[in-house]
Amino acid sequence: MIRSVFYISDSTGITAETLGQSLLSHFDHIQFKQQVCSYIDNEEKAIAVVNRINKAAEEDDERPIVFDTVINREVGDILEASQGFIIDIFSMFLKPMEELLGSPSNYHVGRPQLDNQDKRYKNRIDAVQYALHNDDGAKVDRYSEADVILVGVSRSGKTPTCLYLALQNGIYAANYPLTEDDMDGPGIPRVLKPFQNKLFGLIIDPGRLSEIRQERRSNSRYASLNQCEDEVRQAQALFNRFGIPYLDTTRMSVEEISTRILMDSGLRNGKGKRNGK
Amino acid sequence: MIRSVFYISDSTGITAETLGQSLLSHFDHIQFKQQVCSYIDNEEKAIAVVNRINKAAEEDDERPIVFDTVINREVGDILEASQGFIIDIFSMFLKPMEELLGSPSNYHVGRPQLDNQDKRYKNRIDAVQYALHNDDGAKVDRYSEADVILVGVSRSGKTPTCLYLALQNGIYAANYPLTEDDMDGPGIPRVLKPFQNKLFGLIIDPGRLSEIRQERRSNSRYASLNQCEDEVRQAQALFNRFGIPYLDTTRMSVEEISTRILMDSGLRNGKGKRNGK
Repeated sequence: MIRSVFYISDSTGITAETLGQSLLSHFDHIQFKQQVCSYIDNEEKAIAVVNRINKAAEEDDERPIVFDTVINREVGDILEASQGFIIDIFSMFLKPMEELLGSPSNYHVGRPQLDNQDKRYKNRIDAVQYALHNDDGAKVDRYSEADVILVGVSRSGKTPTCLYLALQNGIYAANYPLTEDDMDGPGIPRVLKPFQNKLFGLIIDPGRLSEIRQERRSNSRYASLNQCEDEVRQAQALFNRFGIPYLDTTRMSVEEISTRILMDSGLRNGKGKRNGK
Repeated sequence: MIRSVFYISDSTGITAETLGQSLLSHFDHIQFKQQVCSYIDNEEKAIAVVNRINKAAEEDDERPIVFDTVINREVGDILEASQGFIIDIFSMFLKPMEELLGSPSNYHVGRPQLDNQDKRYKNRIDAVQYALHNDDGAKVDRYSEADVILVGVSRSGKTPTCLYLALQNGIYAANYPLTEDDMDGPGIPRVLKPFQNKLFGLIIDPGRLSEIRQERRSNSRYASLNQCEDEVRQAQALFNRFGIPYLDTTRMSVEEISTRILMDSGLRNGKGKRNGK
């Protein structure tokens, strides 16, 4: 059984898609065919979307599921007349929230917190530049500005995590790859020493690491299981010896790794987090 | 008036936070104090969160708003007994969806689509590596693999957009900065020619561009309004001459720019999009 799903918004549709995908993940025995329809903000576009919904209904011989965060009532009314099963997200929540808050909502299109002139937004973009500048240990001159410095062996997930933390949370995250030389030494790498309280380690199952490295350089010493086992063991020993918090990323997504780092390092509650710097 | 808001989940909390922030943006005359509580997956953690909610209720002298996507019923019941106004997101939606789909949900913790072993996830991480490799025109050897190549003058928003498209959508996005030399020539830059159908232009208000560049190199020719006006005008002329689709990013966030690119280039509907390559 295939079921069509539409995410419809007069803005980006990110809210509808995030909530919808999260809900659909609880029906993993059903196959869904998903479409995002963004910026549906006039009658003409609404009618075009209704045609797509009705066509899908006919093809699937089932009612499509429609998650919408449409504000424009004209558009909303047109959608209601489609053959889709409409889940009008904002209407469901805004009424009870208005009652609780004792205040009407200023129901308007868009998400004001995303305006690119705003301070929080600017901080996210600066954080992306920071992550790029301080990726992979190539430059270490701006570690004093870091909110967190991720350390781990090559391909343990440091770079995507830094970029996610920057883009989503405006966190200044640098990363430093642990090499064999680093781990042979008696202490933590010299460049990291002044920033020991900002370090956060990533480890990963050696078998999984070897798979990932094989794709990059197959049959190399770098990718061999032996090498991966050695490196991960040494990294973990280093973290333990110096009380560096760390995380096993083996089955975690960047979203999950980032969430854990925010929690475990206290950054989520504003510790060390710059305010729109 | 300050109102406390809690996002509570036994997973990352991203769904609760996305939906909640989107809803709160419709009450922009009220100030909210927001906290994300992730991985609340046992009785002990639930009780600690309830204590925080009740403390906030006392301090604010108002009921905090609690958005939760908790699956664990034991945890859910403990939250219900708090002084917060509980908005149990999954419960609200899953019942009607189960009826529509004629099938029970396999109500479990987590979002399986985020498992880092899965193909779609792997594609996102590969796309991040691709964006990094092909950033800023430094290397152009892998343009044939691109889903889209963003072109625009320095600081028009190319790099963060490429990274967002990669992380969120698994799109292979390269970017190429237009220099004065490029725009003085008679055609489109030589390295871009074979990929003309993949190009997507970004322009920006020259005044805003000048502001952004001032932060990087203040009082430089590069940041002068005159220079910014010239560059943007030439870029736009180039896009018009060669029929390259383009977007004015002046007041748009990376989320909005990315959504527009996905729509306008047809990438959202799978055109040119690799399937878990």
